Amino acid sequence: MLPLMVESRIRHFKWEVNYLPWSPDCSTESLLIAINGHFPGPTIRARAGDAIVVELHNKLPTEGVFESPWADGTASISQCAINPEETFIYRFKVDKAGTYFYHGHHGMQRSAGLYGSLIVEVAEGKQEPFHYNAELSLLLSDWWHQSIYQQMVDLHSKPFRWIGEPQSLLIEGKGRHNCSLKAYEEDKNKDPDLVPTTLCPKNNKSECAPHVLQVEPNKTYRLRIASVTSLASLNFAFGNHKLVLVEADGSYIQPVTVESLDIYSGETYSLLLHTNQDPSTNYWASASIISRHPKTPPGLAILNYRPNPSSLLPRSAPPTPPKWNDTARAIAFARKIVADPLRNTNPPASAIHRIVLLNTQNKINGYTKWAINNVSLVLPATPYLGSIRYGLHSAFDFHTNPPEDFPENYDIFRPPQNPNATTGNAVYKLKLGSTVDVILQNANLLTEGTSEVHPWHLHGHDFWVLGFGDGRFNWQRDAARFNLKDPPRKNTVALFPYGWTAIRFVADNPGVWAFHCHIEPHLHMGMGVVIAEGVDRVRNVPRDVLGCGMTRRLIGPHGP
Amino acid sequence: MLPLMVESRIRHFKWEVNYLPWSPDCSTESLLIAINGHFPGPTIRARAGDAIVVELHNKLPTEGVFESPWADGTASISQCAINPEETFIYRFKVDKAGTYFYHGHHGMQRSAGLYGSLIVEVAEGKQEPFHYNAELSLLLSDWWHQSIYQQMVDLHSKPFRWIGEPQSLLIEGKGRHNCSLKAYEEDKNKDPDLVPTTLCPKNNKSECAPHVLQVEPNKTYRLRIASVTSLASLNFAFGNHKLVLVEADGSYIQPVTVESLDIYSGETYSLLLHTNQDPSTNYWASASIISRHPKTPPGLAILNYRPNPSSLLPRSAPPTPPKWNDTARAIAFARKIVADPLRNTNPPASAIHRIVLLNTQNKINGYTKWAINNVSLVLPATPYLGSIRYGLHSAFDFHTNPPEDFPENYDIFRPPQNPNATTGNAVYKLKLGSTVDVILQNANLLTEGTSEVHPWHLHGHDFWVLGFGDGRFNWQRDAARFNLKDPPRKNTVALFPYGWTAIRFVADNPGVWAFHCHIEPHLHMGMGVVIAEGVDRVRNVPRDVLGCGMTRRLIGPHGP
Repeated sequence: MLPLMVESRIRHFKWEVNYLPWSPDCSTESLLIAINGHFPGPTIRARAGDAIVVELHNKLPTEGVFESPWADGTASISQCAINPEETFIYRFKVDKAGTYFYHGHHGMQRSAGLYGSLIVEVAEGKQEPFHYNAELSLLLSDWWHQSIYQQMVDLHSKPFRWIGEPQSLLIEGKGRHNCSLKAYEEDKNKDPDLVPTTLCPKNNKSECAPHVLQVEPNKTYRLRIASVTSLASLNFAFGNHKLVLVEADGSYIQPVTVESLDIYSGETYSLLLHTNQDPSTNYWASASIISRHPKTPPGLAILNYRPNPSSLLPRSAPPTPPKWNDTARAIAFARKIVADPLRNTNPPASAIHRIVLLNTQNKINGYTKWAINNVSLVLPATPYLGSIRYGLHSAFDFHTNPPEDFPENYDIFRPPQNPNATTGNAVYKLKLGSTVDVILQNANLLTEGTSEVHPWHLHGHDFWVLGFGDGRFNWQRDAARFNLKDPPRKNTVALFPYGWTAIRFVADNPGVWAFHCHIEPHLHMGMGVVIAEGVDRVRNVPRDVLGCGMTRRLIGPHGP
Repeated sequence: MLPLMVESRIRHFKWEVNYLPWSPDCSTESLLIAINGHFPGPTIRARAGDAIVVELHNKLPTEGVFESPWADGTASISQCAINPEETFIYRFKVDKAGTYFYHGHHGMQRSAGLYGSLIVEVAEGKQEPFHYNAELSLLLSDWWHQSIYQQMVDLHSKPFRWIGEPQSLLIEGKGRHNCSLKAYEEDKNKDPDLVPTTLCPKNNKSECAPHVLQVEPNKTYRLRIASVTSLASLNFAFGNHKLVLVEADGSYIQPVTVESLDIYSGETYSLLLHTNQDPSTNYWASASIISRHPKTPPGLAILNYRPNPSSLLPRSAPPTPPKWNDTARAIAFARKIVADPLRNTNPPASAIHRIVLLNTQNKINGYTKWAINNVSLVLPATPYLGSIRYGLHSAFDFHTNPPEDFPENYDIFRPPQNPNATTGNAVYKLKLGSTVDVILQNANLLTEGTSEVHPWHLHGHDFWVLGFGDGRFNWQRDAARFNLKDPPRKNTVALFPYGWTAIRFVADNPGVWAFHCHIEPHLHMGMGVVIAEGVDRVRNVPRDVLGCGMTRRLIGPHGP
């Protein structure tokens, strides 16, 4: 008998990125950025330990692209954008089972649809610490009818033009604009055979037909769910069903039963759904906006109990979303996410490097910006990884250490006294292997009485979420109450209005990494920082990620 | 007394390329690509012998750009596109006085407004061979309401979606959509004080106010005029005035008096205008479509005889354009353009290299394309100049010589029997210093009974136009009748329906050069060829034009 071989595999994907005329909410057709003609992009599914090879060919006629899968780089941070007609080969290993996604990270290309799911199953022979019969997956996103080019121009206009709330929320890339359940039901009264191939009954396009989750009664499903929204923070729920959360951002959490899931842009969760309700009907799945005054109807999908037809309209209404501005509820939800201590390592007991990042809305030369400790990030033309690794120090503000705190007398409950910030591109230099605490500190916007949620995402690392609090962070008082017992490991975490969020991570991944608000227009307006650690240890910067900006100086000796 | 020094100067320009929300015809606002916030871009004015330095900074968030001034390169031909946030410095010498323009040459960025005038005056102390009191200049263009991204997607759709005729014609970047002189006159009857700040009287935006050419009575003006249209071939005229043509594409021509000027995309002319008409009124300047069935109203500007107010509406109607499909008239016009033999060198008496280029519309995998000798040009990701100069021969089809003729039995008067073409990127290799004849041969489109005008533009060279003819070119019969006496020197020349155009040039400019139909959608659909000569003589390929595609292989020795 042959021994059982558990081998890791290489999984090859061949992608072509191009424009796709599409209307995900059956409103006016516009240009999406799609992969192999699909929106959302194809799902990458692998097992822990596998090697992933994605051969990406950029067919956009003039735009560079950049994908950020688990390889986790970013144009201008770790590599040059992939030029039109160029092929770039991503190679990365997926060493940790979990639910992830990939997305474009150049300009606002994520808002144009350049994203998809990345699912890593446990290695062969290994078991998940929970049981389920089958698996489902959902990507949540938001959609504007304005092109991303117009959105980028608007965000950089004087006077400022905000992109506004999304026209639609999409579930698995499908939504519906400007039509209601009510309209559907009225039409259904006239035509009882009407099937909700779309919730806009007059419109039979499949783009916006609601997504259908097919389930059998009395089973347990693992639903992998990710939010790639550009702006919206979401609350997701099923009618009549509770959810058991078991995984967040690729780490196991203590299973917790909830009525609904708060999910911020950049976050992923796995939840268990028990199909234990009346099997004679279907149920709604619903994604609703929280943390901003909602002007967008909920995104809906159908939980289809087989053998009911998927066209059977749920008997009960979609779940009622929580109050959008109930921050106490949202923080209480966030605190429910704690690590499964058996399956996670705890953080080091203390940090040697403490950084406080004040989040403010500012003005720079009359333009509206976001700034961190009064510096609004403007990425240089030369990717940091190349410029630091090869000593091209004039490619950015190499010698400046960006501020690691903000003035004592700054009042986070008032608009900034001096709203003017500066632009910058300096890098937080971290000692390789050091433990770092970062306090994200929220504050009042330019307008009195307003503060917003920001989901912060760190590339290249998982961090521990040590705590959330109201008001201004105080090291003496608040650090003492850090959760060091079962802090969840995440790569994205929400910063709540007028509050603080504390995270800890070990700077153990040589490279240059972005840490930024995952709200696309906020990042575009400067809401991020860049960290670097152990860049001298990066042995192989492939030529394929160089060639733009000052890395051209490396051309030779056959060159000029 | 100091001696009079006649020195050449260095003229510095600093440009920032960015999107501009704009409506050049006062219809819906859309995104133009502008330079320093201006559309059209700023005029470069210099004297022969000057050095021009243009420091171009690309502020587009995700798009590369490429400008093609007299430096005359092209993205993918001679250089990599300029990435977002990069600055590229163009340095070139303007050694020949004349009227030129520059424009973006990446994707369809010219159609998005990336163009401007380049005017080279005679060297100090030198005289033009004609007299004039003052100078005016005009750029003619066409405008679509669809974005260039949508246009590019449409052109690459199956089934094919044609971009259609332009919504407006623009003179100096100003046009008017969907409003007529008649509407203006009706409103004028109600309000006699109404001034035509725009010809759409209800609309006071300055974007589309007609351009005003201010003149004094009884003077002679030199009007420099260039067509940067994406699609339209134009006939330009002034009401009540004749024109004396004196320069074409930067070379002096035998002065010729005409009623109106045919000007094809890519062409430039200088004409003398004598303001010898009744000075009590203003006159229309008008640009009308020829050679395609016009669905776009003429573009209008005002010839304002001072001291009349510019708002004074011309007493007579705009000039009547010639019949759009009168090819005999158009050829007769083209034949009027002959060189001023005193100020031009004649071509070599014979050519050692003869190339015939059949222009056909084709199908490739069901996509509609244009092909030259059955090959539709698809530019490689690596610019030719770098790949040829540094021996990166796998960057394109290096070893193939593209076809230099087409089958004897091909019937140019019928749709192609086999409409299928192939794509290709091979290069016509010319011996440095050799004299080359190129016959452009027109043919029937995919549809019976149709053939279109194509203005062909050659980069890096002037050529002599040896003749135009109907039907299929025949070396015995037609070469004998070439005009070797006073052929005009041009860089753009029209190929007429079902006809041929013969040109001769000396391959004396080391480099790689595009030769293509200047109609933007036609080039985008493959209507061009690439020539190379003496690339080994190109000593200094600056690093700034490398770094994309396979030229990344030149990275080292500090690189990986």
